[in-house]
Amino acid sequence: MANPALNIEAKRSESLPAVFRRYRSDISFALRESLAGDGLAVNPMLRYSMGWADADGKPIDATEGKALRPTLCLLACEATGRSAREAIPAAVSLELIHNFSLIHDDIQDHDEMRRHRRTLWAVWGEPKALVAGNALRTIADRCLWRLVDSGVGFAAAMDVEKTLTAAYLDMIEGQFLDLHYEGRPDISLSDYFGMISLKTGALIRGALVLGAMVGTDDPGTVDAFRKCGRSLGLVFQIRDDILGVWGEEEFTGKPVGADIRRKKNTFPVVYAMSQARGRDQEKIQEIYGQPAVGDEDVAEVLGIMQRVGARQYAEDLAAEQSRLAMNALEPLELAPEALEDMREVTQFLLVRDH
Amino acid sequence: MANPALNIEAKRSESLPAVFRRYRSDISFALRESLAGDGLAVNPMLRYSMGWADADGKPIDATEGKALRPTLCLLACEATGRSAREAIPAAVSLELIHNFSLIHDDIQDHDEMRRHRRTLWAVWGEPKALVAGNALRTIADRCLWRLVDSGVGFAAAMDVEKTLTAAYLDMIEGQFLDLHYEGRPDISLSDYFGMISLKTGALIRGALVLGAMVGTDDPGTVDAFRKCGRSLGLVFQIRDDILGVWGEEEFTGKPVGADIRRKKNTFPVVYAMSQARGRDQEKIQEIYGQPAVGDEDVAEVLGIMQRVGARQYAEDLAAEQSRLAMNALEPLELAPEALEDMREVTQFLLVRDH
Repeated sequence: MANPALNIEAKRSESLPAVFRRYRSDISFALRESLAGDGLAVNPMLRYSMGWADADGKPIDATEGKALRPTLCLLACEATGRSAREAIPAAVSLELIHNFSLIHDDIQDHDEMRRHRRTLWAVWGEPKALVAGNALRTIADRCLWRLVDSGVGFAAAMDVEKTLTAAYLDMIEGQFLDLHYEGRPDISLSDYFGMISLKTGALIRGALVLGAMVGTDDPGTVDAFRKCGRSLGLVFQIRDDILGVWGEEEFTGKPVGADIRRKKNTFPVVYAMSQARGRDQEKIQEIYGQPAVGDEDVAEVLGIMQRVGARQYAEDLAAEQSRLAMNALEPLELAPEALEDMREVTQFLLVRDH
Repeated sequence: MANPALNIEAKRSESLPAVFRRYRSDISFALRESLAGDGLAVNPMLRYSMGWADADGKPIDATEGKALRPTLCLLACEATGRSAREAIPAAVSLELIHNFSLIHDDIQDHDEMRRHRRTLWAVWGEPKALVAGNALRTIADRCLWRLVDSGVGFAAAMDVEKTLTAAYLDMIEGQFLDLHYEGRPDISLSDYFGMISLKTGALIRGALVLGAMVGTDDPGTVDAFRKCGRSLGLVFQIRDDILGVWGEEEFTGKPVGADIRRKKNTFPVVYAMSQARGRDQEKIQEIYGQPAVGDEDVAEVLGIMQRVGARQYAEDLAAEQSRLAMNALEPLELAPEALEDMREVTQFLLVRDH
């Protein structure tokens, strides 16, 4: 396997691939429109959570995320033959659901910071943040109906909706498994893969599937994008896990070893637990069994990870999945530009530093 | 206005109206079916929250609620001309959404008991309960699709879905306003009515509207049920508020004055704040401005409520709304049995003691 670590350094300062920029303004406009006009009392919180306003409701320079899921959705729609515009309602819905899940995740994890800003519950308290998350989720549903306005028939729109709801239920089940596995030292790699294919995989896979469903009626094409999405979800999450352990604070906003300190069941630690032997095995299980994890413990776990080669293994695995993601699309004979876009996104997910 | 207090005593030991019993087994079967077959890890929590299983997953004698919303939905469908069976997917969806909202409400309020059982978060912790609530909400969406199987066309099914989602968003906005008003002594009766018409009103109104939408294409008929539902929602909530202040523990599971102790902005207190003068006015605002409310404060507020006649006023208002609910249906010339069913439900909501 190739060593993607070399790429990481080369790419660290690079901005997002062109395809993210291409769709950005359309996505941003549609997202803002989705939250406009209701006059809901909960709206200022939603605008804050989307990164458009400060806690007093004043507009700020957008600190939006990279809109990965909407971008994948529009890209798949365009690649399979229809205008990206037609998939906008699905793209917006995906991003709102993603943001909703972040709001509730932050409550669950008691995280006070995200994207270098205070989280919603940290500003407004848990009860209001919980309700605001639910509002965002419902607005996401509402957005999807516009598929019918954008030319998709009722039956097809309902199919898209069923697929999104199924993806969403998968995501929730994955979140539940993640909580269920917390503090357990016996989580296998297979448990881990099962959990992340739901928790993060579902929406990433769903983004490509939804876009392809709007773009084409051909089930084989949709299925190829589903396979691609499955691998891409793994690339995304393994990279996320690598950053959670070895990411640099200036990029991720979190200190090295952050996920170890929080005893998260991420890939490097699950791998280390499965590979460590003797004293290392006892030690890592002991640390993950403790109520709290200190600096020395973090250093200890980092040492064990190093001895079993966890980082290299994770990077190789992500690189392999990035190849599988592209292979899945091969039989489709997509336009060269579409393939190149997909390759750029895949490569970005493999090497991103935040 | 008539004094419904006399009815209360007479009805206290009576069981639910016949119409609740008529639909009960169909609703119960469909609810259980909605949660079967997934094999989700979150399922045992959902079965517990529905009152079908204990915390270890063992089946228990059902402690289900009265299924008010599903019953209203099926009743409206049958009254407007189609078989109640066709509205079952909407009825199930409404009940799951209601139960979802209870799960999240209990987290927000830190309530450890509901229906004489420990709440979901009290058993499994907040993070898992939050996720389980989200799962239930998503399963509710999924149930609604069966409308198409039960003979409702795609376009009509999507209309029903839009209406349910709008009702749901209204409910969330109402929950948000309720939190927003917490601890504020300046909430007017108009604020209060606006808030409860969303928080509780939306789903009760939605239940009748959804049932009527499945039952008939006539917008006038649907609108009459909407008007009826608006009044019925008020009857329900005012009665709830009366029970929250003066309800007896053996029926409600809460001590007298429970809602005062929790500084809830319920009808009797909002009314008392608007009517009290001089020392009473200062005192009630002072108590609601305190961080905690003790036994003496509760007694003081109860005294002020008595002096302004809050209970009588609330009961008269509920009785008036119960008449308006029935008046709204008059132009429809429903079958006498259907009208009698609606009258029984309305009367029950007016005098229920739990």
